[in-house]
This record gives sequence, structure tokens and C-alpha cells, in this order.
Amino acid sequence: MAVVVQNIERAAPEIVSRLGAAGVATVHEAQGRTGLMSARMRPIQQGRGIAGSAVTISAPPGDNWMIHVAIEQLQAGDIMVLAPTALCDMGYFGDLLATSAMTRGCSALVIDAGVRDTADLREMGFCVWSTAVSAQGTVKETLGSVNVPVVCAGAQVSPGDIVVADDDGVCVVSRERAEEVLAVAEQRLAAEDEKRRRLASGELGLDIYDMRARLEAKGLKYV
Amino acid sequence: MAVVVQNIERAAPEIVSRLGAAGVATVHEAQGRTGLMSARMRPIQQGRGIAGSAVTISAPPGDNWMIHVAIEQLQAGDIMVLAPTALCDMGYFGDLLATSAMTRGCSALVIDAGVRDTADLREMGFCVWSTAVSAQGTVKETLGSVNVPVVCAGAQVSPGDIVVADDDGVCVVSRERAEEVLAVAEQRLAAEDEKRRRLASGELGLDIYDMRARLEAKGLKYV
Amino acid sequence: MAVVVQNIERAAPEIVSRLGAAGVATVHEAQGRTGLMSARMRPIQQGRGIAGSAVTISAPPGDNWMIHVAIEQLQAGDIMVLAPTALCDMGYFGDLLATSAMTRGCSALVIDAGVRDTADLREMGFCVWSTAVSAQGTVKETLGSVNVPVVCAGAQVSPGDIVVADDDGVCVVSRERAEEVLAVAEQRLAAEDEKRRRLASGELGLDIYDMRARLEAKGLKYV
Amino acid sequence: MAVVVQNIERAAPEIVSRLGAAGVATVHEAQGRTGLMSARMRPIQQGRGIAGSAVTISAPPGDNWMIHVAIEQLQAGDIMVLAPTALCDMGYFGDLLATSAMTRGCSALVIDAGVRDTADLREMGFCVWSTAVSAQGTVKETLGSVNVPVVCAGAQVSPGDIVVADDDGVCVVSRERAEEVLAVAEQRLAAEDEKRRRLASGELGLDIYDMRARLEAKGLKYV
Amino acid sequence: MAVVVQNIERAAPEIVSRLGAAGVATVHEAQGRTGLMSARMRPIQQGRGIAGSAVTISAPPGDNWMIHVAIEQLQAGDIMVLAPTALCDMGYFGDLLATSAMTRGCSALVIDAGVRDTADLREMGFCVWSTAVSAQGTVKETLGSVNVPVVCAGAQVSPGDIVVADDDGVCVVSRERAEEVLAVAEQRLAAEDEKRRRLASGELGLDIYDMRARLEAKGLKYV
Amino acid sequence: MAVVVQNIERAAPEIVSRLGAAGVATVHEAQGRTGLMSARMRPIQQGRGIAGSAVTISAPPGDNWMIHVAIEQLQAGDIMVLAPTALCDMGYFGDLLATSAMTRGCSALVIDAGVRDTADLREMGFCVWSTAVSAQGTVKETLGSVNVPVVCAGAQVSPGDIVVADDDGVCVVSRERAEEVLAVAEQRLAAEDEKRRRLASGELGLDIYDMRARLEAKGLKYV
Repeated sequence: MAVVVQNIERAAPEIVSRLGAAGVATVHEAQGRTGLMSARMRPIQQGRGIAGSAVTISAPPGDNWMIHVAIEQLQAGDIMVLAPTALCDMGYFGDLLATSAMTRGCSALVIDAGVRDTADLREMGFCVWSTAVSAQGTVKETLGSVNVPVVCAGAQVSPGDIVVADDDGVCVVSRERAEEVLAVAEQRLAAEDEKRRRLASGELGLDIYDMRARLEAKGLKYV
Repeated sequence: MAVVVQNIERAAPEIVSRLGAAGVATVHEAQGRTGLMSARMRPIQQGRGIAGSAVTISAPPGDNWMIHVAIEQLQAGDIMVLAPTALCDMGYFGDLLATSAMTRGCSALVIDAGVRDTADLREMGFCVWSTAVSAQGTVKETLGSVNVPVVCAGAQVSPGDIVVADDDGVCVVSRERAEEVLAVAEQRLAAEDEKRRRLASGELGLDIYDMRARLEAKGLKYV
Repeated sequence: MAVVVQNIERAAPEIVSRLGAAGVATVHEAQGRTGLMSARMRPIQQGRGIAGSAVTISAPPGDNWMIHVAIEQLQAGDIMVLAPTALCDMGYFGDLLATSAMTRGCSALVIDAGVRDTADLREMGFCVWSTAVSAQGTVKETLGSVNVPVVCAGAQVSPGDIVVADDDGVCVVSRERAEEVLAVAEQRLAAEDEKRRRLASGELGLDIYDMRARLEAKGLKYV
Repeated sequence: MAVVVQNIERAAPEIVSRLGAAGVATVHEAQGRTGLMSARMRPIQQGRGIAGSAVTISAPPGDNWMIHVAIEQLQAGDIMVLAPTALCDMGYFGDLLATSAMTRGCSALVIDAGVRDTADLREMGFCVWSTAVSAQGTVKETLGSVNVPVVCAGAQVSPGDIVVADDDGVCVVSRERAEEVLAVAEQRLAAEDEKRRRLASGELGLDIYDMRARLEAKGLKYV
Repeated sequence: MAVVVQNIERAAPEIVSRLGAAGVATVHEAQGRTGLMSARMRPIQQGRGIAGSAVTISAPPGDNWMIHVAIEQLQAGDIMVLAPTALCDMGYFGDLLATSAMTRGCSALVIDAGVRDTADLREMGFCVWSTAVSAQGTVKETLGSVNVPVVCAGAQVSPGDIVVADDDGVCVVSRERAEEVLAVAEQRLAAEDEKRRRLASGELGLDIYDMRARLEAKGLKYV
Repeated sequence: MAVVVQNIERAAPEIVSRLGAAGVATVHEAQGRTGLMSARMRPIQQGRGIAGSAVTISAPPGDNWMIHVAIEQLQAGDIMVLAPTALCDMGYFGDLLATSAMTRGCSALVIDAGVRDTADLREMGFCVWSTAVSAQGTVKETLGSVNVPVVCAGAQVSPGDIVVADDDGVCVVSRERAEEVLAVAEQRLAAEDEKRRRLASGELGLDIYDMRARLEAKGLKYV
């Protein structure tokens, strides 16, 4: 059952990068509020917003062997997504693996487990979203799989899906729907610019969104 | 039962701002160690210490409609305090709502739930203390109340109470007791300055506070 | 049973500082993957990596009296390690105690509980690893002990053990084994430099570590 | 600030006992979905549903002195509600205190902390809802208060309020509103009996509550 | 996007019931250690082991409208599996809904959220595995979907998959693989019977599984 | 470093069994409030109170190989204590291992991780205190050690120490101090009998323990 899928389809770089520019909150909305990972998934750095194509890793708890296997499959712009097969907070990934991944054009990891060498990773500019930070090392004893569908921090991720990540968390966009989601996201951004301008001028959401009548109908009392 | 209380009393700005300068730890002590929110309540920014008058929001889980209603009630120097009526980590608040709140002179939110657009909020200088960060959006379907007493992260908050928040967390000062608490807080600060000076010179707390005899009486042994 | 052990043995400063330079992840590996505190133990600052000799404190929940006692026992380069005798997230330690500790050459605390005045502590350069941040103050009513063996965040710590701490967490090195652990750690660092160079040049871990045959033998399939 | 309020008002026993018979879920609904403690509050026994008048205890973390003080204030039918002033999971209460409380007609405790001697308590028929079970004993060093308003597991409790507790958790009914809440609760129970009869006969909620048109209007598609 | 899929395929009752008899631990092993829900998923009853075909429900946080919709889709032997679209511990389900579900031959619910009326549910023999118990009621305002793929407590569940649940937790078996997994499971059970017999006679696992040479080769020392 | 210590000293069975009869809360008090495991450690059964000599197991996360090794070292009356070297909630132990352990006179396990087959274990009368229940199986790939000192759920345990466990949790008594602790425990039990008799007769703790003057001196006010 341990398998490495070598040829996966990826979305066009232009689409991926524009999804990254839209950001997690907007993309999540644009996709009908699906694909968001749990709020336990936090960045180790601040102020970085990215997107990339998912190279997925299903790994046993406390075993990072499959990351070495996955690195060979990386292409520029990929993001590794590791889901352990059981709860684990050990440090699967550190600066050596990041060095290797960066030579292949990958500069981010999303992992429902721990990472280490976090100071080095920040300095190298390698981005991580993880559910733990831990110096506890792993072994290389048991196989897992690369580029199979996984559930990571509550979100289903298929290889080649687009991973969008920023300070708010991580959202996964289905590759098949990427263009459609992007279109909606960019419409939202444009609409938000207009709303932001009106709100900044002092108009109230109550008026912009015509909420007053509906609030009154529902029974809200002002005293 | 859904109600908006429009005219609430607030403490004098001078008192509020001096409570903010005293900081959470000192104010909490000065108030007899009451009013502190749970340690789950964390800032999304670092190095900001503020105080303001509470405009309280009781909202259903996953529904941020009442924030729009609350914004209309804001005055300069207010802090919004949102307590959901059930456990929720969704992102109730982002940069658009912050833009609107800032036009009314409010630049902080304390929320026992999640927020999103955190990178933008930090850049705008809008301060947040929350129990989660999440891109998960909310709906606008069910009423709540504004400016009613709430329990937020374990602390009772009445509208107009003074909210003091910094990197250590959030403390709520009863409006009625604000002047009395401030007086005690400022005495503590003065006393601490003197203690800090003596400690910095190498004197020991054991001597400054005359602890040695009491320690011996309780039975402490040096070996 | 309340006791203060006054004369403890410490490792040579040269060894302590080289362990600090090696960092938590490397030292933990070099010690056979023992001595690591739980991932709940997090720094309040970022980018600081240190090491020191442990002055241990066993304290009742919500009572910081023994920190005053411990400070008198501090020598330059020591790190205080406080383990409460029951679960507690109160703020045992703030800027006044830090001021006092720094006059004795101690500039770090590791505590399985909370601290306060965190903005001040960061500004003073006093480093803290804790399991909570809380403004909740403590009392001075019940004795504890100083320089006895404690279990802190899941790790056994004896007085004089070397505490290594950085952004990845905290690891405790037995004083008796310090030289041996250091030797292994520095060998690892040298080996890692070579590996990093090779990985940075684009070689794969699969080849550097000769993993391909073993992966195939275990049954990994490429499709 | 340490105070014991000796004469508190209580609701009529008939009302209290009928609220207990209605149960937590119904009473919580009847009160407009307010007053519910956090789901962290769990019973140590199974199958017991009770109600009583709250005798509140505000106690320091790890200090159960005020329970002795509170017991003197107990009347038949009371329930003790203990809120520590900081997070604490120590065992404040065991079989000796239960023995004493039972001589005064109190046979239940609600506590946002731990209890011990749980096997004995179950055998004695003394009911407990707590957020922890722990053999860790407490001290008697620091004062607290009895019969002051407290926040317990997220719910505001005033002395004399009615506490309803069963396998689902704990709900607090304001004494002033007890009769009104009871009336609504008993209406709900009657209505539920009718609904239960119809549902048991095979009718669907979709039809009983006329949901089909509204579901269609909102856009639900059957495929 | 709100949809109800009305005709789903189910596995043969004979296969489902034999998977239930095998139990969660055995089935999980037989399926290559996949499909297990998180250990946060706990039964509200003890000693019940069941299996059924999944009718899946994707519901908004705090909104149980779709359960009414799902009940109409139930057939005898089905188990409802509810995954909220955001973290939620509210009580989605109680004795009225259970009464309705039981008329259609469904007597179990698996839910990554809370339930209420737990004493009644136990008495009715309706089984629940949940991540919370809470009396907090929900609303009926927002649509979700029935019989779409969901991620529940970390496990992917498609409609018609076989859900196996007992005191150890919940495991999901893909419908397509059900027969194959059952065959392996029953082989395991047979093999375990033989092992149990030998172990009960005093033979050691070290000998039955020929572990001694491998332990020695790995370097285990007896002292 | 992987080692099995074969000959460990155990306390006399008479002392062990009397410590078990005293129970966790009393023994913990008698030992100066030390040795208690975290409140996360919970029994899978109810109403069982036991004591035994610790056979300790240090095991890698997700690897139960060392349990097979430990079983060979068991003597009648022993309790296995397993501490994983990293956070893990997988199911290390089930009915087959219990069958084997019971042939050697061991009928209890204390484990800072998960167990499975819990219904069977309860039926067999094999007692477990664990921090999780999980069907997730483990591997047999990496060595650990048997009968070395471990930290389990926050408590230091040396081989041969006496483990006392009941519904309140788990306490570890140092073998060297067992007789002394037992003497104190039995004095406490006798004293508690007398206190229980007086409290049951209606006397108040306030009077039995002469608390009134001290409360008044500390400033308690009755209003």
C-alpha cells in the first residue's frame, strides 16, 4: 500500500500565485467555505502569504522517511503537505530537509505535527505551518505514501490541489475548481475594495448592507 | 430578548488612559485580583498596551451580525468585547469591520472566539486579543445583544467597564471602582519603582520583604 | 521536607556555552533523545538560544515564595527551573524578580506555569520558556524547596544539570554526561555541515543516505 | 474583601424541584439559552438529575478553607457552587466534607476544579459535577468568600440562584426568573410529549414542523 | 451547493454486521490502519459495539436542520455521521430526534460535536459517539448537505461507507473494500483466537512471535 | 542504551496491599503530597482500587515491542507502567497482551498513552489507567528499555516503586519509603474515621479544627 505517485497534475502557476495573493480568508469564502484546515494549524513565521501545489505525504507517527522520498518529487512552486496517520507532535522536519527542498524550488511545508530548527527555517525564508514545534526527532523505519489523498488538520488534500497559507491559517483549493474559485475570489476582492472605501469614509455596514429593516423585523430593540 | 443599549456610562478618559499605562498585571493586583480573563485570551500583536471602555456584544456562535450593530454605538476610546453564547473559534472579525470601527475611534477588540485578516489588522494598528485565529467566516442570521452584561473568557464584563489589555492578557475593571483601583494601581507602581531600584542594586527580596524569619518559622532548612 | 540545597555542582562554563551553541535539537539527539521537555513549553521571545546550570525550584501551585529563596542561590550563568507541585498557569514571575535575578548573573527562567510582565522581560533581555502567560499573581504562604530534583514539563531535572533552550523548546542534559553529550553534539554539527553542503548542491537524501535499496526492499512502489 | 453573606434568599422548594424534573436541556431552552456552564463540567456519577439553591464559594486556587465556612451556611436542598479565582484542577473536596454537607441536607457540589474520593462520593449518593478528578489535596491558608456572585465554568451564579444538573451538564437559573422559566419549561415538556408521540408514530420532523417549503426556498436540492 | 443525495449504495447487511462483530480495533488493522476517527470521539454508553451504513450530514456550526432532512433518508441499519463545517460542541441531537430516527431503523449517531438528553438516549438504547456532551441547543437557519463526502473527526466518510463503533472508538470502512476488509478481519480474529489460547497457557509473545533474535540483533541488553 | 533490568527489588506484598487499601488520596497525603500522576491519567473501569510493584517500560511513540519484553519480567502483583518517549495516544495494549500478563499474575497497566479492546479488558478484570483510549495499533520496530526510571504523566517512577491506583487517579510511592508512608497513611485513615464520625453527627469542621479564631484574625467578615 506504500506508493509514490510520480506524475501529478498541477494548476497553472499564474492561477496559483493569484490565489496566494487573494489570501486564505478570501479564498475560503470564494470556495463556498470549504477546505479550511483547523485553527490548530499555525505559522512559525509572521507576515508571509503564499500558495503552491500540494505534494502530499502520508507518514507514520514519528517517522519522516517519506519526506526524503517526497523531496525527489518536488517541482518549483510546490508545497509539501504532511499528514501523520496518528496524532503526533514530534519534529519531522528541520533545516537540512529545508535546504534540500529549496534546491528544488519548494519553500513551504504544511504539517499536522511538529517541526524543529525553527529559528534557522525563519532565517532561510522557508515557511512552515504546523500544529507543533518540537525538537523531538523521528525515525526512518516504516513506509508511507507520497501523492495520495490525505486528511490534514481536518481538510481533505489531493496531490496537485492548491494550498493557500498566510497568518490566518491554511486553505486547500481543489485543482479542478481552481480557476472558478479564483474568479470568485477576485470578484470578492474588488467588492471588498469598494466596501472598504465606503466604510473608511464613515458609512456604516448597517446602511451599506441594508440591515436595519431586517434587524427590526427579527425583533431587535434599541433602548 | 435581543436588545441594544444605546446610552452607557463610561469612565473619564483620563482614568481610562492611566489604567492602561499601569498595565494588566498591576491593575489586576490593584483590584484585589479580580477581573482577569483566562490565559487562553492572547494578543495577535506584540508590545501594545491599551485601555478603553467596553462596548459589549453577546453573539450567537458563528454569527457576527451584532458587530455591525455595535459599531454604530462606538465612541472614541471604546473597546469591543464579544462573548459568543457557545464555544466557537470562527473568524468573526476582519479588516473591513476594523476599518469601520476605526472611523469611530475604536481600535481594539477582545473576543472569546476567532478573528481573521490578522496581518492586515496588525498593519492597520487595530489591536486584537482573541482565543483563536481563523479564516472561517460567519453568517448574519440570528440576533444577539449589544451593551448587556456578558461573561467573556471567564470574566464578567458590564458595558462601560474599563478593559485593560497588553501582552500579559486582559483585565476588566468595574466602572464604579475605576478611580479607587487606579489609585491603588499607581501606589503599587510607585512602590514597585522603589523596589526595582533596590533589587537592581543587588539587595535581595528576602531582606527587602523581611522574609527570613518567617521562612525559618515555617521550617525551611538550609543544607 | 522544605529544604534549600546551597552548594550544588555545576558543569564548566565552557561546556555549558558550547552546548548552548549546539542548540536544543542537536543536543537532544546527542543525548540519545532524552531530556526534552513537552512541546507545551514555549519561549516568550524569539531568536534567543541559551544554556545554563539549573537551579531547581519545587513550588506549591500559586505560590512564588521559593523564587525569592532561589535567587539568593544563583550564580552567574544559572537558569532557574520551576516545577509547581500541581497544575497551575498563574504568573509566578515578573520584571521585579527578573531585575533581582539579573544582578546575580542569571538571565533565564524555565517554568511549567505562567509568567507576567512579558513585554518588560523581553525588553530587559531576560529569557523565559513557560507553559503559560498570565497576569494572575501568586501568594507567599507555603514553603517549597530549592535545588532538589524535580520533574518539569515531563523532564527530570537535577540541580546543576545543563538546561539548553531555544526557539524549538527546552532540553536538559545530565551534568555527569555533559562532556560526552557535547562531544557527540559537536560531531553531529560537523556532520550536518557536510550534509547541508551536499544537500544545498542538489544531491538528494535518498542518495546521500543510500535509502533507495532499503525503500525498495520494504516494498515502496513508484507509479 | 473576604466576606460571608449569611442570609440569602432561596426559591420555593416546589419550584426548585420542578426545575430539576425538567432537566438541564429543557431549562436552558426555557431560559432563552442562557446560564449553561461549559461542556468541560462533567458529572462523576451517571443517571442523576437534581436541582438546588446555590451557595456560592469563591476560593483561591488550591485552597479549600472556604468550603468549611460554606458548610455552616447550608440549608436543606442547597447545592454548593465553587469557582476558584484561577485555573486549578486540584481535589478540593472529598468524602469527609461530603459527610458534613449531608448532615445539613446538601447533597451536591458543582466545582470548576477537581474532587477526590470519587468512589466514596458515588457510594454515599453525594452528586458532583466537576472539571477534574484529582487526589491532589489543598491547603487552608487564604481567605475567599461565601455567597457572593461568581463566574463558574463560564456561567454567572448569584447566591440563591437555582442550579439544575444532570448527565448533560449544569445550568443556572436566575432566582428572580425561576417561576417564569419553570412555566416555559413545563410548556416545552408538554409540547415535547406531543411531538415525541407523533415522531414515534413515524411522522417526520420535516412535516410536523412544516420545513419543506422553507428548505426549498433556501435552495436545498434533492438529487 | 446544499444537496441531498437520495439514493446511495449500501453494503450487504451480512457484511456490515460481521464487520461490527469484528470490532473497531480488528477492522482498523484489517484495513491497513486507515479510517480511524480521532480519540476525541467517545461513546456516551458503555459495552455497545455496532456497525451500519453511513448516512452523512454536513452541517453548519450550531445548526441541526439537516438532521431532520437526513432522517427521511434513513433505512434500517443506517448510522448517521455528522461533521460540522467548523469547530462546535453544541448539542445537535437529543431524544426527540432519536425517537424519529429509531422509527426508520437507525439507532446510532456519530458526531464531531455535542449531543444532549444523554440519559434518555442511553435508556432508549440509541447509541452515540460524540466529541462533546452539551445541553446547548442549535438553530435551524442555514442549509447543509446530506449524503456528500465529509471529514469527521479526522476520517474521510463517504455515504454508504460502513461505520464500525465500539468502546474503543469509531472506524470507517470504504464500501468498495468492505468484503476484502472483512475477510482480513475474520482471518485476524481466527489467528487471534489461536494466539490467545497460547498466551493464556503461559507461552510468551517473545517466543510465539520469534522476537528474541531480532531483539538481540537490534542491541537489547539484559542486565 | 536499550536495556532490560531483570532483577528489581520489590516491597513486601503485605505493605503493597495495605497501601492499596489506603487509596490514592490518602497515600498521596501521607507521602507529603508527592508522586501523583497528572489528572489526565484516567481509569477505563470504575470502582477498582489496587496497588502493585512497578515494572517500568520506556517505549518509543507508537511502538509496543517492549511490552512483550516486559511481560517476561513480571511477577505476581506487578503493575506495568509505560511511559512513551514522546507524546502519543495510540493503542499500545489490548486483550492479547492482557491475557499474557495475567498468566504471570499481573492485572494492571498504567500508561501515558492509549489502550484498546477496552470492553474486553473490563470483562477480563484487567485494570487500566491511561491517558487515551484508541484502536490505533502500534509497530514493533524500535527498542526501548524495561525497568529503568521513567517519568510517567508527570511522576517519576523507578522499578519496584509501589503504584497505587483507584478512581481518583494514580500515585507512586518510593519503595524505600513504603513502610514509612504506609504508617502515616494508616494513621490518617484512623484519624479520618474519628473525624467522619464527628462530622456525621453534625459537628462542623470550623469547630473540630478550631478554625474560627484564625479566620477572624485573617479578616473574614460575616454579613
